[in-house]
Amino acid sequence: MKIADLMQSADWKAEKHAPVIDAPEQVKAGEKIAVEVSVGKEIAHPNTTEHNIRWIKLYFKPDNGKFPYEVACFEFNVHGESVEGPNKGPVYTEPFGKAVLKLLTSGTFVATAYCNIHGLWESDKAIKVAE
Amino acid sequence: MKIADLMQSADWKAEKHAPVIDAPEQVKAGEKIAVEVSVGKEIAHPNTTEHNIRWIKLYFKPDNGKFPYEVACFEFNVHGESVEGPNKGPVYTEPFGKAVLKLLTSGTFVATAYCNIHGLWESDKAIKVAE
Amino acid sequence: MKIADLMQSADWKAEKHAPVIDAPEQVKAGEKIAVEVSVGKEIAHPNTTEHNIRWIKLYFKPDNGKFPYEVACFEFNVHGESVEGPNKGPVYTEPFGKAVLKLLTSGTFVATAYCNIHGLWESDKAIKVAE
Amino acid sequence: MKIADLMQSADWKAEKHAPVIDAPEQVKAGEKIAVEVSVGKEIAHPNTTEHNIRWIKLYFKPDNGKFPYEVACFEFNVHGESVEGPNKGPVYTEPFGKAVLKLLTSGTFVATAYCNIHGLWESDKAIKVAE
Ligand SMILES: [Fe+3]
Ligand SMILES: [Fe+3]
Ligand SMILES: [Fe+3]
Ligand SMILES: [Fe+3]
Repeated sequence: MKIADLMQSADWKAEKHAPVIDAPEQVKAGEKIAVEVSVGKEIAHPNTTEHNIRWIKLYFKPDNGKFPYEVACFEFNVHGESVEGPNKGPVYTEPFGKAVLKLLTSGTFVATAYCNIHGLWESDKAIKVAE
Repeated sequence: MKIADLMQSADWKAEKHAPVIDAPEQVKAGEKIAVEVSVGKEIAHPNTTEHNIRWIKLYFKPDNGKFPYEVACFEFNVHGESVEGPNKGPVYTEPFGKAVLKLLTSGTFVATAYCNIHGLWESDKAIKVAE
Repeated sequence: MKIADLMQSADWKAEKHAPVIDAPEQVKAGEKIAVEVSVGKEIAHPNTTEHNIRWIKLYFKPDNGKFPYEVACFEFNVHGESVEGPNKGPVYTEPFGKAVLKLLTSGTFVATAYCNIHGLWESDKAIKVAE
Repeated sequence: MKIADLMQSADWKAEKHAPVIDAPEQVKAGEKIAVEVSVGKEIAHPNTTEHNIRWIKLYFKPDNGKFPYEVACFEFNVHGESVEGPNKGPVYTEPFGKAVLKLLTSGTFVATAYCNIHGLWESDKAIKVAE
């Protein structure tokens, strides 16, 4: 069995689990850029103690390189948990993360997300770096 | 030995390791709010393969509760690493994270950050929730 | 507010949240050693979708150094979650981790653990390295 | 681009990056079992500030379920980093983790590992649960 057999993908406008990557189309080499990743941008995903998005990871594969880099991992660690019982707590983290980074070459971002009951999801987005 | 003995703090305008918490002073209960955490906002921290900020964690302690919650963890996982050698890689993640969350009660955020050679740092910021 | 205000500690034989560090008293410099960390070794902690131990971190503070290092982080990510409902799932991870590491100098391990409803807990244990 | 395009696999006896999953062939439903994951079991992987294994994740896909669960994540966070310079520090974490868990149904473990310069690697291992 391969991760490929476990990884789901879909149009994020129709499927609430598919991660969304918001990044510029083109940037300058070495400038600080912002990349946002989220789940549920169009159709909100549940955010309860029993059902929630745990994390989103952002990878970058350079066009001219063989291996991907893990850029950032965003962990969403509270979803209404409480000593009063589930969904009674005072804090709920939404499945959203924003990274700031510098790129030196063009490549492709791949985001993976994990729902604690609906498993693994992925999306990708290319970015052009003017060197 | 206690974590308290290992945790450092300082004014972030003078010390490049102290995490900064950018959050509103007052919010409405249950509305989605953004909280940004970063290191090096005033004085940039190095971002090299050998010396970098690995993560920032954001906690929330409700005023009326005994225990803190971990809201989010932001991991910064690439700093120029490459098969070509250190600091030859095409990606550098900056020590910045943005969380989106909902609060139901007033409390205090505590952020902790980890530099791979200068250890653990913390900061805090209170937030008022109009219920 | 400081992390010190949020961090709890207790004798692990009496308090089910206190992390336990199982490490040798004395080791040789540079040899591979095993260090186990766990929660609930004497009194089991609940392991349910609503209430569980999320992670244990292991730090090391060298006697002759100013800053601590994060040795490892163990995340326990499944506790019966399921599309069938909470506690209907087929997997439950226990709050236990084992690291293998090499030390070059004497120092002290500090472990921190996080319960999703009872917050942060810590323990420590010194280790002697024969150089 | 898909994660499948980035994920490498190989026989761990010949390739030092391929994660190894050491788990029993058959267990009883609900009993506590140990599962070890590691990289470099046959051929050691470098463990330096510039080149190291950052994490191993362990997933479980039940035979009778559609979605995988993330069982545990092991992060290896120190590799000789120091204010004295790279590879001068007193601690080196090896790419090894041991989880303790309970299973209620048969399925397959999938482990993924990340080398900071050689990217993503995966392995799998089936386990039978006598119910
Ligand atoms: Fe879901
Ligand atoms: Fe530093
Ligand atoms: Fe608890
Ligand atoms: Fe490698």
